[in-house]
Amino acid sequence: MTSPFQSVAIVGLGLIGSSIARAVHERLPDVRVTGFDMDPAVRDRARALALVDRVVDAAQDAARGAGLVIFCVPVGAMATAAEAVAPGLSADALVSDVGSCKGFVAEELRKALPQARIVPAHPVAGTENSGPDAGFSALFQGRWCILTPEADADPEDVERLSAFWAALGARVEIMDARHHDVVLAVTSHLPHLIAFTIVGTASDLERVTESEVIKYSAGGFRDFTRIAASNPAMWRDVFLTNKDAVLATLRQFTDDLAFLEQAILADDGPTLFDLFTRTAAIRRGIVEQGQDVGKPDFGRASN
Amino acid sequence: MTSPFQSVAIVGLGLIGSSIARAVHERLPDVRVTGFDMDPAVRDRARALALVDRVVDAAQDAARGAGLVIFCVPVGAMATAAEAVAPGLSADALVSDVGSCKGFVAEELRKALPQARIVPAHPVAGTENSGPDAGFSALFQGRWCILTPEADADPEDVERLSAFWAALGARVEIMDARHHDVVLAVTSHLPHLIAFTIVGTASDLERVTESEVIKYSAGGFRDFTRIAASNPAMWRDVFLTNKDAVLATLRQFTDDLAFLEQAILADDGPTLFDLFTRTAAIRRGIVEQGQDVGKPDFGRASN
Repeated sequence: MTSPFQSVAIVGLGLIGSSIARAVHERLPDVRVTGFDMDPAVRDRARALALVDRVVDAAQDAARGAGLVIFCVPVGAMATAAEAVAPGLSADALVSDVGSCKGFVAEELRKALPQARIVPAHPVAGTENSGPDAGFSALFQGRWCILTPEADADPEDVERLSAFWAALGARVEIMDARHHDVVLAVTSHLPHLIAFTIVGTASDLERVTESEVIKYSAGGFRDFTRIAASNPAMWRDVFLTNKDAVLATLRQFTDDLAFLEQAILADDGPTLFDLFTRTAAIRRGIVEQGQDVGKPDFGRASN
Repeated sequence: MTSPFQSVAIVGLGLIGSSIARAVHERLPDVRVTGFDMDPAVRDRARALALVDRVVDAAQDAARGAGLVIFCVPVGAMATAAEAVAPGLSADALVSDVGSCKGFVAEELRKALPQARIVPAHPVAGTENSGPDAGFSALFQGRWCILTPEADADPEDVERLSAFWAALGARVEIMDARHHDVVLAVTSHLPHLIAFTIVGTASDLERVTESEVIKYSAGGFRDFTRIAASNPAMWRDVFLTNKDAVLATLRQFTDDLAFLEQAILADDGPTLFDLFTRTAAIRRGIVEQGQDVGKPDFGRASN
């Protein structure tokens, strides 16, 4: 496959940045990749893992000569990273990112790099693990990557970034940044908020010990603990920078939860049965469309 | 391994009942197993799968000659099942079950079978699939089975039932029924209630289509859909028969959620970061104690 970019700079070498590096190395072997991370220990690790062709130690060197610069840092750190990289940025370089909140990030990147070509992006993929060792080249395979270009973006830039993500195995969708933030509030941000909450609730109870919670977690609780083990800094930033959509979705959820609570209080079996029957359909859709495995227990059970 | 029972009757041949049948067949091949299900189609399927040595068509024949009778039906159907089986029950048979709510089930079984030896039990294991085809023999391997004998139960009965579950691969714990119901409200019932709710919420939004929810579910939402695809009748009964513990835990959860909502509204990053850091420890405990796999994405990702 030929790449729309001959040289790519990755700023931030955690789970997503290091997965992009590995995927480019595997699928676009002719592309030269430069990497930078604010954390010297991560840079050392990236060198040891040979994640990229060259790890630079100064932010201003990261983007030098790169046709595509991708910021892979928590959304709250985008502006700082962009400002630090700015001195080395070529005038014709395309700037993108992988942040989970697109409205906020678009504004931050535009403020930090007023003259740059910018097309924000969000690969909807990840795991609960963080850091340069956690990445792997197949992370984006079959997952969706959403691009949220501004109205005045160059269509050719959008096209080239789409081709880049398709080369890494992703399916690409173009979306308005505001709509992205509402959709992801439902499919990603609210689930994480709830998972963090219930895991916190379970570890703070008076009548049930943490040891009991762990022992009997196979009853359902363990499913929530995976995403509640995700990167704390990344998720703090998501909730603070997609506040409106997250809180609106949260209110809808708490209304629905109060409705179910009333049904339980009123011994209203038919209402419960009706909802519990409808929810299975969504799971079937997710499995049919390849966004999850169809095996019981996510395939983790040995049967 | 020698079995403490020579003949076992399984009443209800869904996921759990059929898994017990398969596990007995594999691990205690000398034990004779009789099966019954209220649904004629399930009985036919059980015969076709050769799940048990003999499938009977009348409830009153199910327990005849069995040393152990296990009710594997939704908790709301325990009393009806026990009454139907009663005429064929031997005086020295041990009666048990697999229900998720122990206080309610103990009362129901005692009322239906006032003279019987009863030791309620709950194997904390399952998948999102239902029915006789969904079961498999390794379902209980390494999972906990909680016995909740009344204070006047014969210690020898408790011993024999423990040995039976251990033979199927389970680890056995003895617990007071009331405490069981509080513990499972946290580790199983509340997670299911929340999963059912959020999947319902996501499918009813005005600004986000169901198709979008499915496409972008890899952002976290898909983890909730697995347990929201579980048996609707079973879960309706759980919430109606463990109402007090479920609602008390739910109130704790909604308080915690309101606290997080306030932290987001107040831009209180440190509070969010602190909680999100603590929750990762519980996941580590669950993985270390063999109650979940340690691979990213529950091991479903190919990397």
